[in-house]
Amino acid sequence: MQHYLSVNDIESLPDWIREARAMKETPDKFLSLGKRKTLGLLFFNNSLRTRLSSQKAASNLGMEVMVMNFGNEGWSLEFADGTIMNGDSAEHIREAAPVVSQYCDIIGIRAFAQLKDKEKDAAEMVLNGFAKYAGVPIVNLESPLSHPLQALADAITIAEHSSLSRPKVVLSWAPHPKALPHAVANSFVQMMGLYDAEFVITHPRGYELDPQITAGCQIQYDQDAALKDADFVYVKNWSSYSDYGKVLSQDPSWMLTAAKLGKAKFMHCLPVRRNVVVEDAVLDGPQSLVIEQANNRTFSAQLVLKKLLEAK
Amino acid sequence: MQHYLSVNDIESLPDWIREARAMKETPDKFLSLGKRKTLGLLFFNNSLRTRLSSQKAASNLGMEVMVMNFGNEGWSLEFADGTIMNGDSAEHIREAAPVVSQYCDIIGIRAFAQLKDKEKDAAEMVLNGFAKYAGVPIVNLESPLSHPLQALADAITIAEHSSLSRPKVVLSWAPHPKALPHAVANSFVQMMGLYDAEFVITHPRGYELDPQITAGCQIQYDQDAALKDADFVYVKNWSSYSDYGKVLSQDPSWMLTAAKLGKAKFMHCLPVRRNVVVEDAVLDGPQSLVIEQANNRTFSAQLVLKKLLEAK
Amino acid sequence: MQHYLSVNDIESLPDWIREARAMKETPDKFLSLGKRKTLGLLFFNNSLRTRLSSQKAASNLGMEVMVMNFGNEGWSLEFADGTIMNGDSAEHIREAAPVVSQYCDIIGIRAFAQLKDKEKDAAEMVLNGFAKYAGVPIVNLESPLSHPLQALADAITIAEHSSLSRPKVVLSWAPHPKALPHAVANSFVQMMGLYDAEFVITHPRGYELDPQITAGCQIQYDQDAALKDADFVYVKNWSSYSDYGKVLSQDPSWMLTAAKLGKAKFMHCLPVRRNVVVEDAVLDGPQSLVIEQANNRTFSAQLVLKKLLEAK
Repeated sequence: MQHYLSVNDIESLPDWIREARAMKETPDKFLSLGKRKTLGLLFFNNSLRTRLSSQKAASNLGMEVMVMNFGNEGWSLEFADGTIMNGDSAEHIREAAPVVSQYCDIIGIRAFAQLKDKEKDAAEMVLNGFAKYAGVPIVNLESPLSHPLQALADAITIAEHSSLSRPKVVLSWAPHPKALPHAVANSFVQMMGLYDAEFVITHPRGYELDPQITAGCQIQYDQDAALKDADFVYVKNWSSYSDYGKVLSQDPSWMLTAAKLGKAKFMHCLPVRRNVVVEDAVLDGPQSLVIEQANNRTFSAQLVLKKLLEAK
Repeated sequence: MQHYLSVNDIESLPDWIREARAMKETPDKFLSLGKRKTLGLLFFNNSLRTRLSSQKAASNLGMEVMVMNFGNEGWSLEFADGTIMNGDSAEHIREAAPVVSQYCDIIGIRAFAQLKDKEKDAAEMVLNGFAKYAGVPIVNLESPLSHPLQALADAITIAEHSSLSRPKVVLSWAPHPKALPHAVANSFVQMMGLYDAEFVITHPRGYELDPQITAGCQIQYDQDAALKDADFVYVKNWSSYSDYGKVLSQDPSWMLTAAKLGKAKFMHCLPVRRNVVVEDAVLDGPQSLVIEQANNRTFSAQLVLKKLLEAK
Repeated sequence: MQHYLSVNDIESLPDWIREARAMKETPDKFLSLGKRKTLGLLFFNNSLRTRLSSQKAASNLGMEVMVMNFGNEGWSLEFADGTIMNGDSAEHIREAAPVVSQYCDIIGIRAFAQLKDKEKDAAEMVLNGFAKYAGVPIVNLESPLSHPLQALADAITIAEHSSLSRPKVVLSWAPHPKALPHAVANSFVQMMGLYDAEFVITHPRGYELDPQITAGCQIQYDQDAALKDADFVYVKNWSSYSDYGKVLSQDPSWMLTAAKLGKAKFMHCLPVRRNVVVEDAVLDGPQSLVIEQANNRTFSAQLVLKKLLEAK
């Protein structure tokens, strides 16, 4: 593995899950692996879980961490080739990436979708720019199209809480007041393609994800039908993909309730808006796995960092 | 001690002061105590001394530090139960606190009074929310009502500079162009309740602090009378408590001068506005303890962290 | 050396370059030198290279680093003596500097020129205020007048890429849409005063740097004539010094091109605006040293920190 840009970079999911769970038992076991190695975390957008869990993961491997917030500590970058840079951007990715990679052994990058221009978001300029021009491994801390550290933490969590050989997992859209990116949903869909599960996606019409990503997936527009006999229900809002970045519905009947959840385990990547996306009773009840998902962010990051350190 | 939320969490002030002073002599003595432990510092407001002294304190105990600025790196939190979260707040304390406590062994929190709604400030939602929902010890880095790390540093400083068995300590209000919180004054008043001193509070009428906090304290409206024969004069502005958050007076005659100070030692928590709160001659003279108070912030934080690490 | 405020603090440039190049070969050789020492980095302005390379340098010496962004995490400081501080500034340098120096063993400071008031910029209030009132060594991370860590990295880079005993080095102004400070140009000019080179400065009329800094330098208004037979061409924009802080020209004919560069090596401190300051072909070609200059920022900082640690 050269970079960890998407779940497609996972070599063997069962092995990775096994290894991550073992690492969770003895987080300090590889404390010497990252000695004198530096993880640079570049945030072009806000972060809480990703920021702290990545730092914790690095620390568990003995790595040092340097954090850079581009929003308020840096400047905007240029990505297009051949541009006459007489506008806002002060530096080109062709300089920024190789420069930063001289100070860091691995670079993590968070840069969200802007949800205005589908093609521009799909180009994943920041992530791909660093992957192309930096001389060190890049870790995706959430890009326009994917959030593979989250999806790996999700897979670990499902494995930990499933005694079934092939659980039924449902990804359900939920309402939200703001337009949100598709990254978490995309990566979860892709992850379920690697996981031995019966997987169903449910959402109102108009909220279809990128058909290239959902190719071969069961899509069910009736939420109740989709949730029937589910073992795990992953709830997440996303904005429309076809009517790109638009909020088409805030239909509260799509909010997840305890009644709808039945006996399934509840999952969400957080942050979550209570009583909009999911009702209190679910989050405060014993079937919620959201805190454990967040905990597993440390070990998904730690596993990825370990693999990148070992591959060097 | 489970948390350090206010000076009421101090088990024995004389013992703590003795221990902090010993720690100041050999700051590295407990360098292995915090090994592989992480201090998370969450700032909902700006910080200079608290930020750096807490990091230094953690470093002296061998701890790692992760800093999170909620203002510009995070998002606003929701604290009320049962809310339909369709407004600005993206995450509830019921998720944020347990999540963060999975990445940190101790969490320090700074969230100031907003000085608009007395009841809301008094609820200390951020601090108490973390104390309630986080699974790890919480340290108050200044909350609406108190700043107990500052007060502990102040007590250490008085002990270092007093050969008297029972010094006279005066807390004097001073003018300031902006409305400031009551936290520093409150905690100093409470600290003097634990310290063997003759303690007098002086301020213009209308600037009475919360009567529950000053219960049993001498309050003197005549600054000159209050300052007479003082050994330590602690100067601090605060806004009105009864006319909540208002600036009722900027009367320059309340500024502390060298003439008023007499032979007493001068104290202030910093930052301080020169020639508004106190004149240059005092700050630049030999009786000022403000730099030493700031130095003792490291050791008050280090003592609190040590006690929390030992209690785990 | 007490502080590193400008290139004038370099004791012997040939020795320093030799030592820095040796350090680059074995960056971890002095890993125990900075053990239990803390570098405080105070940013009053944005930073990418300086931020990360200084952290890396400190790490290579075993130092811990505390970063403070005054813009969004702190508050504005007052520098004038005797001021009645009833305006925006919440703290005086006379308190801030000694306080911070109690938490740090070395302090690095970045505070740019504001390009509005020549005398005010020339006073270098932030840098000199800390140097005067802090009790620890100060490192200039770019002040209004100079950027000596950059200039040291530049000198190391020239030495690495020159087999000549006395190379011809040209500093050429280039157009830029914004008014930029003189710091990088000033320090490079001063550095060339210490370096055994034939040194020529070229810029349009009206862009003369401070004559005190360029005293004795060859100044050539004809860029083509200046560039003739150059071994190294350092390109940099700066605003007018005589018509202080103004953009007098954006004449694109001053942009550096591959044709103009000839066989010379190309240098720039970065960030650089492509196709405004210099054309793509130069930056993407084999004669560009800009990535290596950025790499040498680590070793210039590491050398300075090492010398300050040893001098204590």
